[in-house]
Amino acid sequence: MLVGVGIGPGDAELLTLKAVKILEQSAKVYVPGKLAAKLIKPYAASEILNFPMTHDQETLEKHWEENARIIASQARDKLVSFAVIGDPNFFSTFTHLRRIISKQYPDIVITTVPGVSAITSFAARANTQIDHSFEVTDGSENKSKIVLKAVKPRKIAKELEKEGYNEFIYLENLFAEKEHISTVLPEKGSYFSMILARKP
Amino acid sequence: MLVGVGIGPGDAELLTLKAVKILEQSAKVYVPGKLAAKLIKPYAASEILNFPMTHDQETLEKHWEENARIIASQARDKLVSFAVIGDPNFFSTFTHLRRIISKQYPDIVITTVPGVSAITSFAARANTQIDHSFEVTDGSENKSKIVLKAVKPRKIAKELEKEGYNEFIYLENLFAEKEHISTVLPEKGSYFSMILARKP
Repeated sequence: MLVGVGIGPGDAELLTLKAVKILEQSAKVYVPGKLAAKLIKPYAASEILNFPMTHDQETLEKHWEENARIIASQARDKLVSFAVIGDPNFFSTFTHLRRIISKQYPDIVITTVPGVSAITSFAARANTQIDHSFEVTDGSENKSKIVLKAVKPRKIAKELEKEGYNEFIYLENLFAEKEHISTVLPEKGSYFSMILARKP
Repeated sequence: MLVGVGIGPGDAELLTLKAVKILEQSAKVYVPGKLAAKLIKPYAASEILNFPMTHDQETLEKHWEENARIIASQARDKLVSFAVIGDPNFFSTFTHLRRIISKQYPDIVITTVPGVSAITSFAARANTQIDHSFEVTDGSENKSKIVLKAVKPRKIAKELEKEGYNEFIYLENLFAEKEHISTVLPEKGSYFSMILARKP
């Protein structure tokens, strides 16, 4: 089993209890760099894998494939973690590894532990707050919309279809008792719900 | 001193080590509801403040003012926490309290501890990932843009000014040793930088 573990934005105290637990239980922990290695040192020894800072797609793919092979060799019968700064599912090295491992080693179960992401935690350092809609961009095309408080899911989806969105996931009561996640959108949603909408 | 503490999206294990520490050290902990009270129970007793679920601005203001008064009476000479689900700086009850306390009780120092937000952590539950630009909306007007990897801050700001943005904060190496936060934008930024842009 492979777990992508988010270890927060860089402050040693911003690891979650769950991240600490998984790291302590892991037979092997990999990291993409020194900062991650340092942050998890109190809980686990780690091996730094080489992810070169380049835009050359061929070089990148070669390293992702090699790192995927290293991780897969351990993750088949052991609990293996890949610890990343921030959250493993947002602009993360882990998503590339996951893509390759899912494809080439489909028998390996992969899951993630969310972490405190810089996307939101910057506000604590900047002494600011956000109470309205916002956009997050790294310069790439905007192809996803997260709709909070999605009380009328089907109506929202119908509107979004006009903007070119064609893929929807409805999520309600996340991380709580009555959690409900589905690509089938209900007519009415609760206040504690969201929609992830995507376009091609 | 008042600390807005993010306690994560609802999973008891997704509190950070820092949240646990602050809650344990607090002389008094307030929460906006039962779920928050339950999540922090292992670390602190808490008092639930009443925040009615209404859109009536007058009723809301009345309750915020009353809750601000209660908190301020304790926070002048003690460490007092207000623990919220998610992150205290995003779509949070805490931001309203903070606004009123800052204004009416300016001698009280206020700070926040970021938490795992549903805005990013939903991806772990939905088994999905986001590697490109995206928008977060609650139906309100989009007035903020978070630019990641802001390697050319001034150039980015110049472009954003054309879209009506007129307020910028540059943030580099957040939560790390060489952290730099400024409204004066440098010509060149590092890969580990971001800009928060706002329009009126």
